[in-house]
Amino acid sequence: MDHLFSTGTDVLDLPAHATPAPEDERLPRHLYQRWADHYANAIRANVLGPHERMPSVREIRERHDVSHTTALQVLRELESRGLIEARARVGYFVRTQASAMPAAREPQKLVPFDADSGSFQRIGERIATYLNKARLVGEFKVDLGSAMPAPELFDASFLNRHAIALLREQPDLLVRAPSAPFTHPEFQAAMSRYALSFGLTIAPSGITATMGNSEAMNISLDALTQPGDVVAIESPTFYGIVQAVQARGLRALEIPSSPHTGMSPEALELALRNYPELKAVVVVPHLQMPLGATMPDSHKERIVQMCSRHGVALIEDDIYREFMEDPGVHRPCRAWDSDGTVIYCASLSKSFAPGLRLGWMNAGRWHERVQMVKFSRSRNMPMWPQLLGARTIGSPFHLRHLARLRQHLHRQREQAAQAVARHFPIGTRMSLPRGGLSIWVELPPAVNTARLYDEALALGIRIAPGDMFSSTDEYGHFLRLSCGLPFTPVVEDAYRTLGRMMHAQLDH
Amino acid sequence: MDHLFSTGTDVLDLPAHATPAPEDERLPRHLYQRWADHYANAIRANVLGPHERMPSVREIRERHDVSHTTALQVLRELESRGLIEARARVGYFVRTQASAMPAAREPQKLVPFDADSGSFQRIGERIATYLNKARLVGEFKVDLGSAMPAPELFDASFLNRHAIALLREQPDLLVRAPSAPFTHPEFQAAMSRYALSFGLTIAPSGITATMGNSEAMNISLDALTQPGDVVAIESPTFYGIVQAVQARGLRALEIPSSPHTGMSPEALELALRNYPELKAVVVVPHLQMPLGATMPDSHKERIVQMCSRHGVALIEDDIYREFMEDPGVHRPCRAWDSDGTVIYCASLSKSFAPGLRLGWMNAGRWHERVQMVKFSRSRNMPMWPQLLGARTIGSPFHLRHLARLRQHLHRQREQAAQAVARHFPIGTRMSLPRGGLSIWVELPPAVNTARLYDEALALGIRIAPGDMFSSTDEYGHFLRLSCGLPFTPVVEDAYRTLGRMMHAQLDH
Repeated sequence: MDHLFSTGTDVLDLPAHATPAPEDERLPRHLYQRWADHYANAIRANVLGPHERMPSVREIRERHDVSHTTALQVLRELESRGLIEARARVGYFVRTQASAMPAAREPQKLVPFDADSGSFQRIGERIATYLNKARLVGEFKVDLGSAMPAPELFDASFLNRHAIALLREQPDLLVRAPSAPFTHPEFQAAMSRYALSFGLTIAPSGITATMGNSEAMNISLDALTQPGDVVAIESPTFYGIVQAVQARGLRALEIPSSPHTGMSPEALELALRNYPELKAVVVVPHLQMPLGATMPDSHKERIVQMCSRHGVALIEDDIYREFMEDPGVHRPCRAWDSDGTVIYCASLSKSFAPGLRLGWMNAGRWHERVQMVKFSRSRNMPMWPQLLGARTIGSPFHLRHLARLRQHLHRQREQAAQAVARHFPIGTRMSLPRGGLSIWVELPPAVNTARLYDEALALGIRIAPGDMFSSTDEYGHFLRLSCGLPFTPVVEDAYRTLGRMMHAQLDH
Repeated sequence: MDHLFSTGTDVLDLPAHATPAPEDERLPRHLYQRWADHYANAIRANVLGPHERMPSVREIRERHDVSHTTALQVLRELESRGLIEARARVGYFVRTQASAMPAAREPQKLVPFDADSGSFQRIGERIATYLNKARLVGEFKVDLGSAMPAPELFDASFLNRHAIALLREQPDLLVRAPSAPFTHPEFQAAMSRYALSFGLTIAPSGITATMGNSEAMNISLDALTQPGDVVAIESPTFYGIVQAVQARGLRALEIPSSPHTGMSPEALELALRNYPELKAVVVVPHLQMPLGATMPDSHKERIVQMCSRHGVALIEDDIYREFMEDPGVHRPCRAWDSDGTVIYCASLSKSFAPGLRLGWMNAGRWHERVQMVKFSRSRNMPMWPQLLGARTIGSPFHLRHLARLRQHLHRQREQAAQAVARHFPIGTRMSLPRGGLSIWVELPPAVNTARLYDEALALGIRIAPGDMFSSTDEYGHFLRLSCGLPFTPVVEDAYRTLGRMMHAQLDH
């Protein structure tokens, strides 16, 4: 197995002028990151205490002689590390509890792995083993393993009212086969309008309904790749993407991804130059799973341009955008696409109606091909969920629901972070993302989260261990914890139990 | 391209003793077929006129000194050729109109084709072209191309009542993500009970819900094959199967299939012996599409045994069993399976609730693998259609609905056959199957049904041309006509129009 990077020294963009020393010597860092480290140290040393007001963008600019953009990035970076929080129209303030914990580490190397290699087989088997163990248990006392909001965070009665009205209005909806066009025109029109609301111009005819995001991802790979082709994925990444790559006998290239800014454009550029058989790049631009990273606009633009230049498809899995604290300011990579390079995939499953299993996609210049693959594999999506989606998505109710959901999840993430700080061992690091359904925790290296998975499952607690998300052995002491559940005493207890198990592992 | 058979002379089972001359010299025929030919000639020569009573099983046995089984087969054969019909507790009678028309011809050779060969590319493109042309039209004046019963043949209000009751009883059904077990236990239990009613013993845990039959077929091939493997399919076959084979870069072996008895066991045996890279056999045992053939039990048993002996999976696509005139007596191939050789696939889409897109399968010894592929590709099926299915399938209402649906379709098939006899050119041959949603029509060789497709589509009439169903050029003058629509004057008009177009083609 050859490594494209053995160290990070190939990374470009290293600023030349004097800056504070980087927090972690192993990787070169951007100017804004170095100033962020500077303030992070100050917060950790209690130079800036909890609830204290941070210097403003202008103050940072003048104090350190940096650009407006860099000053803004410093604050955003500190926010994404969970150290400070914004209060509307007032400024940024140092956070309490969670601020005591350092952020999860940046990645170091680009790891290619082969469909045929041992490590690839192992990750596939590992994922299957975890899923099967969970399946045998069936019901969990506390499920911290599934990145899904609890049912009580949705307003089912609104959906049910619309569903019933729809069956009364179109009584033959359950007995009429989906007609010739692959996707219902009402659904296409509604999603096209909705996409416009977050910065995407997609013609209604360009929208294809799918069975959730997973099917969209899978038919994209069907349409784009042949066995033996190479696909670039984030490292670590969602295990569903690893399974999809494995199922096709593709070679996956794990591109190092930062817990703050996601896939490294520099590493991707190197990969694109070195692997002519690279056919597709898969990114989760917002709240990447498991890291929680969100790509800065500049990275999105660069990655789209790179893929376009190399004629490689960019599959954008945008399932978590609606979970951003500030979804309005985050446009998908698709917004920078001018030639059909991006295959955009999204879903109603996580944020609105998990019981419908309804996703949608726009396949750029592969639209015709993707539609034919979809039809060939599973025919059209049923009409009634499409119509139900068409009549609710983008409505004032839907938008209010999303805002409420974000508030709940914000509180639950904070509570989870505080529970981690209270119960987990010293040396624990954490990414507390700017939104989303989970936190990503790095434990002391002596903690084995694969073992922890079994121990916890025996008590009815499900977690997602780090080695589900990468073929490398770098995440054996990492953990993804879902924040989808309201933080009840039972959940607090689960954190306490997990902490006790970790301490027991460390004591041996 | 090598042909396994250049003539049919390898076929076994040729009876030694004197029998009437075969109707068609090109193929050896079974004893019962020869006696059936004998009576067919008598009917065509008006020796036996319309509405005349046929000799009984005992009379045939005694008259021709054949076994009880052979005598019964003679009558069934004549029935399947559309020449006679059964009247309950009275016997068989010569039919009117349709009886004037000879049956579609038996196939002649085994045609292997390669994923890389020109003919394979052509069939894939051809199917896509037909589907895209239809999609551009969108709505049809008369759709004779889709093998689906019209919505008015279902009782939507029953399903709607249950759907609404379900949403009231479990108000969080649309906002709760499907839980850890892949298929809902209530659905598994219901389908297991239902399978028992037609002769299959399948443990509830062995049942997987899928997005219709298509997904079941596709994930079976995903689980069983690697690109370059060989899959045996019926010839002609449903175009969805051709697409599924093509999408995976598999090599397909078209096994000659009779319009009466389906896939030839003799040809399959030869294929199994000659192609060690053969990984799966796909059969539609009941009312095969497009032929309408139904496999005799003896063939089912032989084919299961052969596949088992060779360690090859038998994918049984049993989507039309419920459309048999006498579904009670027809057991799927799976009934003869003792070692998990058969992957059984069925669906609620055609016969009960087209709008749910709900299929199910039992994957025999590939169960675990198929479940993991399903989860990886599209996760679990939504719960509410599974629960709706669980509460209605096998109920007295469901069974009454099926009986009524069969009656309607019987009448519509008869009316379609009579319209063919009235309007189509002399020399037309036809398979009128013992059930199902369509008839298979062979026109004089000078009629080009690909051209007919375009001409008809321009007038809002959709048909399914023969060359959608095979990579060979043998079906360019064949046609599958759906009988799903109630036979209104508009439908009669469509037949008249098609007939006129055929005559115009012949006149040029």
